[in-house]
Amino acid sequence: MRKPKVVILGAGYGGLMTATKLQKAVGVNEVEILLVNKNDYHYETTWLHEASAGTLHHDRVRYNISEVIDRNKVDFIQGTVSEINTKEKKVILEDGELEYDYLVVALGGESETFGIKGLKEHAFSIVNVDSARQIREHIEYQFATYKAEEEKKEERLTIVVGGAGFTGIEFLGELSNRVPELCREYDVDPNKVKMLCVEAAPTVLPGFDAELVKYAVAQLEKKGVTFMIGTAVKEGTPEGIIVAKGEDELEEIKAGTVVWAAGIRGNSVIEKSGFEAMRGRVKVQPDLRAPGYDDVFIIGDSALIINEEINRPYPPTAQIAMQQGETCAHNLAVLIRGKGEIQSFTPDIKGTVCSLGEDDAIGVAFGKKMVGGKASFMKKVIDNRSLYMIGGPTLVFKKGKFNFL
Amino acid sequence: MRKPKVVILGAGYGGLMTATKLQKAVGVNEVEILLVNKNDYHYETTWLHEASAGTLHHDRVRYNISEVIDRNKVDFIQGTVSEINTKEKKVILEDGELEYDYLVVALGGESETFGIKGLKEHAFSIVNVDSARQIREHIEYQFATYKAEEEKKEERLTIVVGGAGFTGIEFLGELSNRVPELCREYDVDPNKVKMLCVEAAPTVLPGFDAELVKYAVAQLEKKGVTFMIGTAVKEGTPEGIIVAKGEDELEEIKAGTVVWAAGIRGNSVIEKSGFEAMRGRVKVQPDLRAPGYDDVFIIGDSALIINEEINRPYPPTAQIAMQQGETCAHNLAVLIRGKGEIQSFTPDIKGTVCSLGEDDAIGVAFGKKMVGGKASFMKKVIDNRSLYMIGGPTLVFKKGKFNFL
Repeated sequence: MRKPKVVILGAGYGGLMTATKLQKAVGVNEVEILLVNKNDYHYETTWLHEASAGTLHHDRVRYNISEVIDRNKVDFIQGTVSEINTKEKKVILEDGELEYDYLVVALGGESETFGIKGLKEHAFSIVNVDSARQIREHIEYQFATYKAEEEKKEERLTIVVGGAGFTGIEFLGELSNRVPELCREYDVDPNKVKMLCVEAAPTVLPGFDAELVKYAVAQLEKKGVTFMIGTAVKEGTPEGIIVAKGEDELEEIKAGTVVWAAGIRGNSVIEKSGFEAMRGRVKVQPDLRAPGYDDVFIIGDSALIINEEINRPYPPTAQIAMQQGETCAHNLAVLIRGKGEIQSFTPDIKGTVCSLGEDDAIGVAFGKKMVGGKASFMKKVIDNRSLYMIGGPTLVFKKGKFNFL
Repeated sequence: MRKPKVVILGAGYGGLMTATKLQKAVGVNEVEILLVNKNDYHYETTWLHEASAGTLHHDRVRYNISEVIDRNKVDFIQGTVSEINTKEKKVILEDGELEYDYLVVALGGESETFGIKGLKEHAFSIVNVDSARQIREHIEYQFATYKAEEEKKEERLTIVVGGAGFTGIEFLGELSNRVPELCREYDVDPNKVKMLCVEAAPTVLPGFDAELVKYAVAQLEKKGVTFMIGTAVKEGTPEGIIVAKGEDELEEIKAGTVVWAAGIRGNSVIEKSGFEAMRGRVKVQPDLRAPGYDDVFIIGDSALIINEEINRPYPPTAQIAMQQGETCAHNLAVLIRGKGEIQSFTPDIKGTVCSLGEDDAIGVAFGKKMVGGKASFMKKVIDNRSLYMIGGPTLVFKKGKFNFL
């Protein structure tokens, strides 16, 4: 009898959790598991803001997939997914094709620029190791060039962050710690450096506790960040951005570096493959399968799940993606064996902590509000927990964060 | 009686040697000594190719001037010299004026582009800490961007070095050691990287022993450098360079980085101040004074001294600049005291070693030819000797090179 073939697309939090749980749940004779990923490494998406700011080396935020998968049970292919042909049950790669019986689409999200002109061309996004590393180098190059050039362009030392959501704020937390180091490294006067956070919404970190948000804003302002809240970005240009000022007026902000951190959408492969989706996100069934497909699970950034309590979608977090991976692996095992019970996915939000740099954070965990060192400690515990859940203690030991203050 | 005032412009090899020798030779009551320099640090010009390639941090190639001058005897002003008014015995700074009784012009050289179009705008030069650091960051940024961009521009990984003289070859030696590191750091395929050396002259390292040159070329070629000898650069463009190919044909070479290392000239302040000069270099008298000026010494890159044996100027090296500094300090002491004998300057070339990277070199020292590890060792001894001559054993201990293989 032919073994069923499970193909998992993406080795992010969701995909890798599915693979590592499934390899434990099933025997080598029961199923063929194939993991497909663009790179031969997994990266901690939630740590990318650190690599982007240059406060943590990019090699610290990634590890080889081979370190956590059981090669006896899981095959790995490095490849880029172009499209899924659900009728023929095939995955089209940039250089090949794969057949599947069961498919897990755990392809990560993409930056969402909401059609704002020029952002794709001129702004950076914190989306993967390549882009994080490029942001780090870009900022360093701006500092080095400013110091070396005869006619100084002050705007080289202006860094605009578009978006005061989680990514924007966490990046600013790291960046404001990094700037004094950059000034020393490149002999630049710290007073010349500007950090701006431009956010269209009327508040920083929408959805977060107001008291904690106030703390975060004050801390970042103390470290040199200027907030422009309720300010919509209208355009990205080679020189910076154009924002709305009042009703009809526009204002140009010159900036050597613009990081767009205001939106994330699902993967564009979702739409290309004909799934019904909103901004690349499919409203999945309770068992995480795509509506109308018995053989396709969608998890992570491309899955949309409504939080019934507030009637809004859950944000696509690492925590939820990993929990989805666990449910997905369970449900796959049930389908493969034809016995057991299909589970419905229910997120179990243990807490949310937003870092404000290595030594500071705000958060809610186990129903308690926290700021400063305590919250920062909790953030590192959470970061280490991601490693533990996928790779066990060995991975925590190799890649964990132990610089507790 | 008013103490005579000696003003020393520039804290490079020549200026700093003059200051440190003079402070030992004269008493605090005999003379007022003022050292003027653009930065508050001295840098080892002959190590800048390492900082540019990124094989040695730029902080390793510089030290604070205050570490080597005796503040009881020498005053230091950080300032940029605009012009010298020899009639009024004044130095015009960007933000002030200084009077002198005796002047030592030890302002360093500048990159010479021989009027080739576009080079000043589009090529980098290894001239100071700022430019070295910018080259390092530029190359890193090219690698990071290549890896991150969707449509790859292969030319980002092409580095053109204009000039196969000392600086060009030493830079290529470091760069070819650095490229494998860069490829690892930025996940770039080493086969995509190109290093080109374009030289108009018919040979690499003109004036060097032919056998040693052959060794150098072979070693650099082994590390991936391609030589285009007898090839004149006609233009620098935003995309790279245009070279002469045969008699009338031109060829475009696309390159993300162009480093122009083909020429050095004296300081432009020399011409602005009315000294008779060729490319910013003044043919000084045997005692190192400018012809027609009893109170102005010119040493280092802006001084021209003919090697009578071959009837060609000595190249402006650190070795010669430091020896000039010694003679200059002696002659100043004689003038100040009105006794003793003015010395004529005679270079004492102890040897010349051209580095091919951390672990390799070619050279002639004490009349003997050397290659490989032995020559590389000698290079480090020479580097440490510069430190020793200006700052004694303390400075060697702090800044010296001890990574002998």
